[in-house]
Parts: sequence; structure tokens; C-alpha cells
Amino acid sequence: MRMVDLIQHKRDGGRLTREQIYYAVQGFTRGDIPDYQMSAFAMAVFFRGMDEEEIADLTMAMVNSGDVVSLAGITGIKVDKHSTGGVGDKTSLIVVPLVAAAGVPVAKMSGRGLGHTGGTVDKLESIRGFRIELPNDRFVRNVNENKMALVGQSGNLAPADKKLYALRDVTATVNSIPLIASSIMSKKIASGADAIVLDVKVGSGAFMKSYEDAKALASTMVSIGKSLKRRTIAVLSDMSEPLGTEVGNANEVAEAIEVLRGGGDTRLREICLTLAAYMTVAGGAYGNYDEARRALDELLHSGRAVETFRKFVEAQGGDPAIVDDPGLLPQAAVHVSVRAEREGFVQSIDAETVGVTAMLLGAGRATKEDSIDYSVGISLRKKVGDPVKFGDVIAVIHSNREQNQDIAERLIGAYTIVSDKPEPVPVVHSVIE
Amino acid sequence: MRMVDLIQHKRDGGRLTREQIYYAVQGFTRGDIPDYQMSAFAMAVFFRGMDEEEIADLTMAMVNSGDVVSLAGITGIKVDKHSTGGVGDKTSLIVVPLVAAAGVPVAKMSGRGLGHTGGTVDKLESIRGFRIELPNDRFVRNVNENKMALVGQSGNLAPADKKLYALRDVTATVNSIPLIASSIMSKKIASGADAIVLDVKVGSGAFMKSYEDAKALASTMVSIGKSLKRRTIAVLSDMSEPLGTEVGNANEVAEAIEVLRGGGDTRLREICLTLAAYMTVAGGAYGNYDEARRALDELLHSGRAVETFRKFVEAQGGDPAIVDDPGLLPQAAVHVSVRAEREGFVQSIDAETVGVTAMLLGAGRATKEDSIDYSVGISLRKKVGDPVKFGDVIAVIHSNREQNQDIAERLIGAYTIVSDKPEPVPVVHSVIE
Repeated sequence: MRMVDLIQHKRDGGRLTREQIYYAVQGFTRGDIPDYQMSAFAMAVFFRGMDEEEIADLTMAMVNSGDVVSLAGITGIKVDKHSTGGVGDKTSLIVVPLVAAAGVPVAKMSGRGLGHTGGTVDKLESIRGFRIELPNDRFVRNVNENKMALVGQSGNLAPADKKLYALRDVTATVNSIPLIASSIMSKKIASGADAIVLDVKVGSGAFMKSYEDAKALASTMVSIGKSLKRRTIAVLSDMSEPLGTEVGNANEVAEAIEVLRGGGDTRLREICLTLAAYMTVAGGAYGNYDEARRALDELLHSGRAVETFRKFVEAQGGDPAIVDDPGLLPQAAVHVSVRAEREGFVQSIDAETVGVTAMLLGAGRATKEDSIDYSVGISLRKKVGDPVKFGDVIAVIHSNREQNQDIAERLIGAYTIVSDKPEPVPVVHSVIE
Repeated sequence: MRMVDLIQHKRDGGRLTREQIYYAVQGFTRGDIPDYQMSAFAMAVFFRGMDEEEIADLTMAMVNSGDVVSLAGITGIKVDKHSTGGVGDKTSLIVVPLVAAAGVPVAKMSGRGLGHTGGTVDKLESIRGFRIELPNDRFVRNVNENKMALVGQSGNLAPADKKLYALRDVTATVNSIPLIASSIMSKKIASGADAIVLDVKVGSGAFMKSYEDAKALASTMVSIGKSLKRRTIAVLSDMSEPLGTEVGNANEVAEAIEVLRGGGDTRLREICLTLAAYMTVAGGAYGNYDEARRALDELLHSGRAVETFRKFVEAQGGDPAIVDDPGLLPQAAVHVSVRAEREGFVQSIDAETVGVTAMLLGAGRATKEDSIDYSVGISLRKKVGDPVKFGDVIAVIHSNREQNQDIAERLIGAYTIVSDKPEPVPVVHSVIE
């Protein structure tokens, strides 16, 4: 078998056998197949696509390129979630304790963020003392005792995916649904999940800008799950404005705690309840979606969800007092109010722009080596559909810089304020299972 | 400017500016742009193509990546020829002396062959004493004195093309008309040509199997020539059977001498006269094609063409006696007759198969390091359209091996003999200028 023949076959619209896909992935992981062949192959896949069987084979070839986590020591159906990412996306911080409170074990591994704000792992590290690395036996014990643990990705999970993603990033071959779908699913399967609930974001602040693209990605991932016998449900959710009111790290943890107490932003709560409902049904805690929704709502209001979060923080070395007093989380030195320059209704808030302002304040990483300032970020005081008067505070900047005029100007530019109240956009577009 | 953005732009069907193309080619030549980006780019070009201006810019960027030969010391319009290659293609050995005999200077640089038989340079080296390397002043003096010289490609001509070709070869991106056309034209222009006549072969023994593909390649090269102010004419010629009767090295030199004496295979003479006619008109020796054809025919029959060849061989250190007695060229030890196994007419001779037999005998190189046995090869005694009786000699194997049964069997397999005389196929399909 020669890689050049596989490239040509795909280039000419052919389909690849499992043997051919494993040959390419294994050779590439070992370094026998050079980057220049893999990038040409990725571009051929960009143009020609892959069928369901090829995508499933590619996924498993990447899973098998490294370690596969065994969660056999954990009792019950292990359900994982994945979000395709967006601005202000703190759903894992809410959904994981909520699902755990319902009795479904969640043994979650999460990545660090490379983008506007930190990833879930970075956000948790804004809690004093919190340890993101646990020995495996401790990880398993925590899940069995408190039904949840959340650690940083460690070990050698899907190294083929890691190497291929780095190559795709510099060869304009990221934007291919078979390659995105197999990348996401290979990591989830290597992490040991029995069932997977996917939060596929769509809109200006998401990787997938159009509903059609997001739906195609979601359907492809659900089909991979079917082929590989992992129950997979995809929720298409709105990312046309930042999710919730907080964008940053410590402030997003505080917002998550608010929702876990039964309060917080309505849209954020809605997407979290939706994801958690599908996860708990998949995990066998409830018989159907409606039953799950009612029970989960009760877990928020009874305090059991926030209690699970508190135990989780404590179990991983974090200060549990932040749960009762989020003021103990890192606080920025300067708080600048940004005021509306006209009257009307908020029609849109450009999530990308808000994300960039958070990053400029120091909340995110531009390169892997950058460090994060947990205390900085943005609070959005007005969201889409809200009425505003001239001079109303629309957002607050939390900063450790003295001058924040540039940030304020960008935020004003992110808001579109119009005279007529816009039609509301639902936070959950559709569900594919 | 970032290469990843250029790849993406081409991937999405955009056109590249001259500045962008030079950025890519120069960066790649220096090694600043890695192979894995260039191969993804080449694959994007495979799918999206390039317009005339992009192709001309790519050609000049490759020309300017290295040395450009100055032929300013040579009087007259310097006309070059290029063949896309085929089996038994010895046209340069005939056309160059013929055009020179007409007074048009030809300062030709030729490559070594990597394929079934040697290239023009290898074939000439079958002449005892022949030197393919000349100092530049000697090269120019020879052209001024005898109107021709033929040397191996030296120096640093179009290094971007060389590097890109090697990459395309292993990434399934050879077969792209913009890339093939710019590759050929960049080498001709870097070699200092004022005008270029292209022999684009089409058929089972050629790189371009279909007439449409060959025509598209020819048109693209003619358009590059127009853009870059080099008069360019493309002749589409037939390669559905080997050209002439000889396939090898020394035997091809002997066949070329026969044609230069006014004899030889009719179809081979026809394509040579056609190419030479276009070259001499482009070089200003004759007013039009018909006039050129009559004058060139006279140069063959008067002995002036073969005399130019003799002087050329002598000027480059070769033994001129081989012109009068081709038996002085290297001779193989064994000559095996291959006989027809049925009666009828030759309908086709698979050029690829004949080429492979010559290579198996040692006439070609599989890798750059292989050496060539000049004395071996195949003589085709029956060509397409010829009648054959059972037991007639259809081909003769010239070999230095003791056993040649495998070669004989392959040659029998290369011939298709049918009951009805096939319709003749013209050797020149069409001309694009």
C-alpha cells in the first residue's frame, strides 16, 4: 500500500477501506507518512468528503492511535458531553454537577482553552486550591462517591487526532465536516464514554456560522455514534450572542453557581436543563425527557445541584467557601461601566467581538504559552431583546489595566440597538438523535 | 501575508494575485513555506484550477526562483522545442539539426530520462566520446558556428519547479493542467528561448491519454507564451503506438540519422518536418509553413541536415564516423526475433508495454541512480496498419541477457492483430497557436 495511491483515490472521489484508513492514520502517527502527504490527503477529503463508514473508521483509527481510558471501575452508564465552543460557554460547570446530582456518573476530561477565554479546566483553576490533575484511582473514587470528577486531559488520548489537527490548522483543512466530526468523536470515545450528548453551537459566535453546516456536523457525529454503538444525541443551540451574562473565567464560575442555585440567566439555564435532561435519560436516571426536565428543575431549586458542585470542588482541593460567597473568587482591580449611546432594544451582541475584548483583557490565550488572568472579563448587563435607555449600563468591564477605553469602544460596537423589539430566537434550535 | 490564508483562498475558489503567487513560490524555494503547506496548496489548485494570469504569474515566479540563461551572445531568434514525451520519441535528435541546417539557431538544453528509455542527453551519450557538458562560451560559439548545440541541463534553472515537481509526484498532484503547463514553460523560459514549439503527445503511450486533456494542456501553454511574449505553437501528435521503429538509445540515434538522410519511418519524418516547419517560421527563416516544409524536405534529401548533425557530434567530441556507419554505435550481444502468432493487420501496439520491455532490458532508469545500457532496445518491424502473416518477424529484441522469453511474450501481448485493416490515424492531430 502506498499513501500516494490513497491520496489519488480520494482525490478522484473514491472511498477508502478500513484497512486503507488505518494504514494512513497509523503511518502518520508513527511519522512514516510525512506531513506533506497527510495535508494533501486532508485537502482531498475537504473536496470529496467521506461516507458514514469511512468517517466511523477514521474515528476508530484515531481512537486506537493511543490510550483508551477504561471507566470500568465506575458503576453505571457513563455519559459525556461536548460543546463545539462559544463565547461565555460555561455549560459544563452547570450540567456536570446537575447530572451527577441526578445520580448519573460523569467522569469528565476537559481541555485547556486556546481562544477568547479559558476552557472549563482553566475556569475551575480560578478557584483557590483547585487541582485539575488527579491520580486515576482517585478520579474513579471521586466519581463513585460524588458521581462526578473533572480533570484535565492527560495521557496519550487520540494522538493521531492531535497531530492531524495541528496540521489541518496550518493547511486550511480545518473546515471539513468528516474531519471535525471524527476529531471530536475520537476524543470522546478515547475518554471512555458510553453515551455522548453534543452541544453544537450555531451563529456568529460559533465555529459553525450557518444552521445547515451545524446540522450537517451534528448529524455526522450522531451517525458516528450509531456506527460505533455509543448512544449520541446532538443539541443545536444558539450562539448568536454570548451565552449568559459573564465572559471570562472567575466571573463565569460565579454565574454557573448562580444557575446551580436555581437562578441566573434564563437562556443559559434552558440550554443547561436541555443538555442535562438528554444526559440523564441516556444515563438511565429518568424514563423520558419531560420527566427528566421536571426532576432536574427540582434539583436546582432544592439545592442538591449546588451541593454536588460544592462537594466536587472540595474533593479536588478547591475552597468550598466560594460557593456561598463568590466574592472570594479572584477579583479585578478596575470595573468600568459601558453605557448605551442610544435608546431602543438590543437587536444583537456580536459574540466574537465580546470574546476578543475578554482576550485583550487577559482572560484567554493566543498561544499555548500564554497565562490567564482569572479575575478579568466582561459582564453583559443587557442582552438581546432587552430595552435600553440612553446612558444605561449595557456592560461592565472587569480589568487589571488602567486604561480601558479601547475595550469600551469595542463593546459599544458589539451592540446593535434598534428601535423595534426584535423577534426572540430560541436558545435550542433542534435536537438530532 | 500567511500561506494558510492563500491556501484557503484558493480552496474556496478565489484567484491569487501576482504578489501572493511570488510569496508562495519564493517562500517555498527558500524553505520558509513547508512542504505540507505547498502540497495542500497544490491539491487546492488541482480542484480549483487557475486562470490565465495566475498561471503566467506562477510560471514567471518559478523562472525567477533561479538562474535565467542569457542567449544574448547568439545571433538570431532562438527557438526551442519541447516534447511531453513518449515511447520511441527521438524527434529532438532530428528536428534540432534540421532547423539548424535551415539557419535558425538552436541552443538546446535537455534533461536526462527517468523512464522507459533515456532522454535526448542519454541517447547522445551512446556516441563514443560525446560530451554533454560544455562551458558556456563554448556552447554559444558552437551555436554561432554550426547553428546548434545540445547540452545537459545545468545550473540552477527553475529550482522552485524542481522542488514542487518532486512534491507533486508523492502527493497525487501531478495531474493538474495549470501545474504541468507552468512547470514545462518555466524551464523553457529559464533556458532563454525567444519562441517555443511544443510537441504535445496524446494517446495510450503518452502522459495525456485523451485528446481533450492534451488540447487543454496545449492551449494553456500557448496562452502562457502569449502572456509572457514568447511566441508559442503547440502541435498535438499521436502516441497511440511507439514513434518510429526503434525504442532504446543507440538504436534510436541510428534511426534519427536515417531520417536525417531523407529515409526512415514515414510518420516519424512527418512529425519532425511539422515541428521543424513551425520552428523555422518562428525563427524567421521562411515566410510560411508550406514554404518551410518544401525547404526542409530539400535539406533532408540534399544531405545538409545530416551534415549539420555530423558537425554537431564532432564539435561536442563525439565520433563522427557513426553518422556514416551506425554499426559503430554500441551493439547488443543477442538479437531475438519475435514472430506473429496469427495473421491479419496490426491494429495497435501498446506503447507503454513496449517501453516497459526496453526498460527491463536496461535501456531506461527506474531511479536516478540507475545506469543505462545504450546498446539494448527493441526494433518494431511491423507498425500499425501493416499486414502480417503467421510467423512474420514483428519485432527484434536487442539484449545483453541470455534469456529473453519474458520480453518476447510481453511484446507479443503489446501487438493487437485483427482481420480487417484498421483506419489510419494521422500522426499530427492539430496545431494550436
